[in-house]
Amino acid sequence: MKMLGILKHSIRYCRRPVAANLQSTIGSTNSNKRTLDGQLDLRCTHVRHVHDDAKRVAEHESVIFRQMFDGETYTYTYLLGCPETRAAILIDPVYEMVDRDVKVAEEMELDIIYGLNTHVHADHVTGTGKLKELLPRFKSVISKSSGAKADIHLEDGAEFKFGNQCIKCLSTPGHTGGCMTYVLPEHAMAFTGDALLIRACGRTDFQEGDSGKLYESVWRKIFTLPNHFYLYPGHDYRGFSRTTVAEEKKFNPRLTLDKEKFVQFMKELDLAYPKLIDKSLPANLKCGEISKEAILGSEDVLSHMGNH
Amino acid sequence: MKMLGILKHSIRYCRRPVAANLQSTIGSTNSNKRTLDGQLDLRCTHVRHVHDDAKRVAEHESVIFRQMFDGETYTYTYLLGCPETRAAILIDPVYEMVDRDVKVAEEMELDIIYGLNTHVHADHVTGTGKLKELLPRFKSVISKSSGAKADIHLEDGAEFKFGNQCIKCLSTPGHTGGCMTYVLPEHAMAFTGDALLIRACGRTDFQEGDSGKLYESVWRKIFTLPNHFYLYPGHDYRGFSRTTVAEEKKFNPRLTLDKEKFVQFMKELDLAYPKLIDKSLPANLKCGEISKEAILGSEDVLSHMGNH
Repeated sequence: MKMLGILKHSIRYCRRPVAANLQSTIGSTNSNKRTLDGQLDLRCTHVRHVHDDAKRVAEHESVIFRQMFDGETYTYTYLLGCPETRAAILIDPVYEMVDRDVKVAEEMELDIIYGLNTHVHADHVTGTGKLKELLPRFKSVISKSSGAKADIHLEDGAEFKFGNQCIKCLSTPGHTGGCMTYVLPEHAMAFTGDALLIRACGRTDFQEGDSGKLYESVWRKIFTLPNHFYLYPGHDYRGFSRTTVAEEKKFNPRLTLDKEKFVQFMKELDLAYPKLIDKSLPANLKCGEISKEAILGSEDVLSHMGNH
Repeated sequence: MKMLGILKHSIRYCRRPVAANLQSTIGSTNSNKRTLDGQLDLRCTHVRHVHDDAKRVAEHESVIFRQMFDGETYTYTYLLGCPETRAAILIDPVYEMVDRDVKVAEEMELDIIYGLNTHVHADHVTGTGKLKELLPRFKSVISKSSGAKADIHLEDGAEFKFGNQCIKCLSTPGHTGGCMTYVLPEHAMAFTGDALLIRACGRTDFQEGDSGKLYESVWRKIFTLPNHFYLYPGHDYRGFSRTTVAEEKKFNPRLTLDKEKFVQFMKELDLAYPKLIDKSLPANLKCGEISKEAILGSEDVLSHMGNH
C-alpha cells in the first residue's frame, strides 16, 4: 500500500484468468468512483498486482513514436523522438504533409533534426527538402548507394543516433538499388520502406530494381531479425499498420515462395500491369493509386501460380 | 555474459547521449556481421546495457494489439488479443472490412469472441452482425444506454474481460446518448470512439447528441485518465493514429474552449454545414467523406471565434 501513496495515478489491474462473462448486462456496484486524489478509480475486481505506474510511464516513453499516414499516396511517415533530449527524426516524410508533421512535433516539444528516407521514392515527393527550408538545423539522410543528394549518407551497418536513441542501418536493396531498413534494436522496431510491405513487397521493375536481390535482402536481413520485432512499412493499401518478422516469414504470399518462383512472380506481376512502369516514372509523381492496384491485383497472379 | 548464452536473440544497445553525428557519410567497420547463432549483430558501439530480450518479448506481448483502418469511412478498428489464452476482441469493426479482420486474426492464432461497438455508428455499417454469422462463439457488445440490440450490454463502470485482459467501461455520452469509452488500465490505452477524436471530437447534432454532455464526458472521464494514457479514436481524417490525454488536454482546439464556447462552437459548426445532418442520417450510411469536411472545416469556425 506504500506504493499507492507514492504513485499519483495508481491503478490496480486484473491478471487472473476469468471465464467469458456472458451475462446480457454487465454493470458495476462501484460505478466509476474516484480515488482520493480525484482520479477515476480504474481498479478491476480481480486484483492480483498493484500496477507500477511509474514503470509504465518509463516504458511507454522509452521512445516517443507516432505513425502517420498520407491517404493520397498511402505512405506512412514515422515520427520518433528521444524522451530525454527531445531530439526527433522523421522517416519518409511526404512533401504535402510536412506542415502536419512539423506542427505535431512542435506540440510534442520535439525538435526534428533529421529526415531519413528509406530510398528514393517514385510515388510521392519526399518532404525532406521542405523540412530543410522550415527547420534551420534539419539534415536530410539517405543511403550512400541510393546515389541521391543528401546532407548525410549512410552505409550498411552504420549506427545513426538522435538524442540517446540508436538506429542500426541495414542495406536492403532490390526495390531500388539504395534501399535501407532502419532498425531500433532497443525497441524491437524496424522500418522497412518498400523492401517489405505487410503481406507484400515493393515492385522491382525500375530504379535498379532486382527481384533476386530483394529476396536476398528480405531473407538475409529483415527475416533474420528476432521474430517478435515489429515491422513498419513504407506503404499500406489495406489498412494495416504494422506486422512482425514472424508473421511475414509465415504469411507473406510473395516472400514465402522460393527464390525462383518469387522472381517469376515479380516478372509476371509486371507483365500483368505494363502501363504501371510508365506511370510510376519519373520519380516524384504521385502514383499511390496505381501501386494500390498492383498490390491488390497480385493475388490474381499468385493464384495462377498455384500459391493460393 | 551468462545472459547472452541464455537468450537466443541477444542484443546490446546504446543509451549514452551521443552528439549528433554530422559526418557526411556514416559507415561501419563492422558492417552487419552475424552472431554465433546466425542472427544479425545489432550491437551499437556505445554499449551500456545488455538488452534483456526475453523481458522485451514479454513486454511487447502483454497485450496483442493491431490498429486497422478503413479508408472509405476513415474508421479505425482495433484488434486486441490475450497472449496467454488467444481470446481476442474487435472494437468498432466495419462491415466491409470483416474478412480482412477475420483473416489477420486467424493468422495471428487469435479467437475473436467479442465485437465491442463504442456507440451506434451513423457513418458506417458495423461488422458485428457479419461476425456473428462467420464465428459461432462471437458475441456483440454495446452500452445498455445505446438502446441498440446486442448479445451483451454494458453499464458505466463495468469490467469486461477477454482472456486475462480487463477492460474498464466509461460511459461518455454526448456524441450519441450511449457512447462508451473502453479503457485498458494495465496497458495505458483508451478507445474513445467518436467522443474524442485527435484534436477534434464527434458531432453532437443527432442521435441524442448533446454538446454540453460531451464536454462533461471528456473532462470528467477521458481527461481524468492519467496524462500518459494513449487515446485511440474511432476515426481520423488527417493521418494521425493515436494521441495522449496530456496532448488533447492542451491542444484539442474544441475541448480547450470553456464549456459555453464549446457548446456555441458545436452549434455554429452545424450552421456552417446544414446539409450534413440529412446526409449523415439514417444510420449506417457511409458518410466518411462528409465527416472529413466537417472536421477539416472546423478550423474556419474556430477562427471566427477568435480561438486561432
